[in-house]
Amino acid sequence: MTSLPPALLASLEKALGPGGLLTDASDMAPFLTDWRSLFHGKACAVARPASTEACAEAVRLCAEHNVPVVPQGGNTSMVGGATPDETGHALVIITSRMNKVREIDPIDNTMVVEAGVTLKAAQDAATAAGLMLPLSISSEGSAEIGGVLATNAGGNNTVRYGNARELVLGLEAVLPDGQVLDVMRRLRKDNTGYALRQLFIGSEGTLGLITTAILQLQPKPKSIEAALCAVADAKGALALFSAFRNTEPSAIQAFEFMSGLSMNLVNTLIPDASLPLSEPAPAYVLVELASPREGGALRDLMEEVLGKAFEDGLVSDAVLAESETQRLAFWKLREEHAEAQKRAGASVKNDVSVPLSTIPTFIDRATAACEKLIPGIRVAPFGHIGDGNIHFNLVQPEGADGKAFLARDHEMMDTVANIVRELGGSFSAEHGVGQLKTYMMPGWRGGAELDMMRRIKGAVDPEGIMNPGKIFPAA
Amino acid sequence: MTSLPPALLASLEKALGPGGLLTDASDMAPFLTDWRSLFHGKACAVARPASTEACAEAVRLCAEHNVPVVPQGGNTSMVGGATPDETGHALVIITSRMNKVREIDPIDNTMVVEAGVTLKAAQDAATAAGLMLPLSISSEGSAEIGGVLATNAGGNNTVRYGNARELVLGLEAVLPDGQVLDVMRRLRKDNTGYALRQLFIGSEGTLGLITTAILQLQPKPKSIEAALCAVADAKGALALFSAFRNTEPSAIQAFEFMSGLSMNLVNTLIPDASLPLSEPAPAYVLVELASPREGGALRDLMEEVLGKAFEDGLVSDAVLAESETQRLAFWKLREEHAEAQKRAGASVKNDVSVPLSTIPTFIDRATAACEKLIPGIRVAPFGHIGDGNIHFNLVQPEGADGKAFLARDHEMMDTVANIVRELGGSFSAEHGVGQLKTYMMPGWRGGAELDMMRRIKGAVDPEGIMNPGKIFPAA
Repeated sequence: MTSLPPALLASLEKALGPGGLLTDASDMAPFLTDWRSLFHGKACAVARPASTEACAEAVRLCAEHNVPVVPQGGNTSMVGGATPDETGHALVIITSRMNKVREIDPIDNTMVVEAGVTLKAAQDAATAAGLMLPLSISSEGSAEIGGVLATNAGGNNTVRYGNARELVLGLEAVLPDGQVLDVMRRLRKDNTGYALRQLFIGSEGTLGLITTAILQLQPKPKSIEAALCAVADAKGALALFSAFRNTEPSAIQAFEFMSGLSMNLVNTLIPDASLPLSEPAPAYVLVELASPREGGALRDLMEEVLGKAFEDGLVSDAVLAESETQRLAFWKLREEHAEAQKRAGASVKNDVSVPLSTIPTFIDRATAACEKLIPGIRVAPFGHIGDGNIHFNLVQPEGADGKAFLARDHEMMDTVANIVRELGGSFSAEHGVGQLKTYMMPGWRGGAELDMMRRIKGAVDPEGIMNPGKIFPAA
Repeated sequence: MTSLPPALLASLEKALGPGGLLTDASDMAPFLTDWRSLFHGKACAVARPASTEACAEAVRLCAEHNVPVVPQGGNTSMVGGATPDETGHALVIITSRMNKVREIDPIDNTMVVEAGVTLKAAQDAATAAGLMLPLSISSEGSAEIGGVLATNAGGNNTVRYGNARELVLGLEAVLPDGQVLDVMRRLRKDNTGYALRQLFIGSEGTLGLITTAILQLQPKPKSIEAALCAVADAKGALALFSAFRNTEPSAIQAFEFMSGLSMNLVNTLIPDASLPLSEPAPAYVLVELASPREGGALRDLMEEVLGKAFEDGLVSDAVLAESETQRLAFWKLREEHAEAQKRAGASVKNDVSVPLSTIPTFIDRATAACEKLIPGIRVAPFGHIGDGNIHFNLVQPEGADGKAFLARDHEMMDTVANIVRELGGSFSAEHGVGQLKTYMMPGWRGGAELDMMRRIKGAVDPEGIMNPGKIFPAA
């Protein structure tokens, strides 16, 4: 069944204990395909270590036998970052049995958490302790901490609390030779050599496998206010963001942009969704404020900034959530854009970021370019405008042939990417490179930058056994 | 005069232009000694490039001729991080002619700044644009941005805004082979390969020379409140910090601890300093709140938290600053501790950090251990308690012989360090490793951690020409 040499198989089974090694094809299947079904790989086995020690021993054995290792968390990569290649040589190591929240400290405001804890479970544990883990992404029910950190996840609350990278104080990881790197320090100041933890976060499993982390928590908000606002365009949305930021930046927990076209798809195609404004607008903003304090100050802040924005003509209409139910209904209007676009036909996704100040230019130029490329195309951008991160999605023209539309996906992606690049943006704001986007690295991150990345990879993993084929294009 | 080969001398002079290369001993002297006068080095010349291109060409020439390069900013290292060794082989490159604030963007809230701009000049430029660069250290009048980033400076506002690392969006650096690494992206989300910028920050010039940076700015505070509080001990100070943090964490701009003994030295030995409280206390806290909003909400917050702290017995006395003059007087009481200790005789400095929750234990244990080691020793800790960062300074017994006291400095430092280490702390919270503390690296950061640092250093700088002798102990 497995291509593993018998001696290695026996050693791995011993290291991983009962139930720790899957070699049966049907047992392995769920771990060999990414959740978007873009990639279908093979593996010699799937390892399920229950401890750092078992994981380290498995990696050491792999290094000894020159067997590639593919780390996998909740298998929610958007870019095939955790799927092995088709050779069947690799051992996939999944972290789901390392799933303890070890400790929450209410003075340090820290949480010690193993790699296989889902982001949702970590959030819940923080909440139960009266604190907040301020990292939220749509796959949080499945995504595990190890993968969340390996990909430097972003999401809705980056505007306030930063990406995953900014939330990690300490880290433990298994290196490609099986050594355990222990930088599990819960220190806010520690200038003693290179920032290895920062390097690991976002390295997509190519330097080692994250096994444990210390996360920085925040006090739990005691008041929260949300408003859905009608604005004229991205320029208006950005001006509204500046108005909130210049008044009280630390109150802004989320600031989301939705194009009128995309919102109209949600309103039309999602059964329970209904726009609470009197009439459709060219664009929308969902702003959420939060405070660790009780009382009406947050409501006053929301009304003050929106009132001024009305006067200045930035906002033409707005509804404030009057209940938790209504707040969640606003979020449903935001969360259903991907689903609504799916129901509207074939679509192409661009997870891009640009400097905040260039967002209106970006949306105007990219919209015009795409509409010129494919007449009738439905340009449906939405996303985290407070971070300069737009999901610039493109939906097929109504009634057009979906397959013919998708056949031109590279034309559309390149059209958008060229504009992003001219504006100093990134071709992957949140999703990473994985295996889907390795081909873009030489053009976008080439020269000294890719050279330095390759040097580091070569130094830490000279045999190239950790997550081969990810981030780096074939040389 | 110079040991430079004539061909290299000519090439460097051509690359650096008029006034760009100093070879006269008296011209070079200011750059060959650290400001604490702990280290006295030699150099073949001192280069003053006026642009990234000139700097890159100088480094390329050095690499070609195997001449070591020592980057130096404002020469304010506490650990000899920018001073060459005694061989005289190295070229010191100073960044002071690369001193332009190139751009401030009030929508992105970003600043593009060259390496040789002093931190103070950068702060002032941000302020003039109605914004704030929230990084403040005591050497900010001399320290330059390149060095500030190379050492990941911390300071008084880390508790609110993070260390230098958290404030940098983009970076440009000259690599050891003369290539220019350009990661000058002003993006809050960009997951496209390794976090090279994060790796560079804090690498103390051992991977290359930082030439330009994009910094994240903040709205300028419009209201500010400061209070000087008497507390019973570090435990009380920490409880007061928790009280503020759990009420409104984003309002805390600084939270500083001062031991009664150290404050008494300030009060006694610094002419203009006078304690505004009715009687001396066992320990003090200086808390500063700031808000981008005008109005009395911040004062209300200060009074609310302090009022509750009085009731809970955490604070026995407190004075709120009634004017900017009084606020600055409070800060003078905080800033003069080093000077007062100097006037009290010989002293030993320990810039350490521990997990927040262990601060009271650390101070209690370290105080007892030092008092046992040297009866009559004056234990005078103060520092950034909100970050877990204590300057655990030790002043000679009154009337004792200063030299005899200092002869035992390693005993005292080891006594403190052992306790720091047991509590999971760091031997260098802010100051870095430089050449002063390289000997501590194997014991504290050894095994897989130091091994990985060495691998990265070897990969990026295989000839070892960038800032030799810093961070890494001789192998």
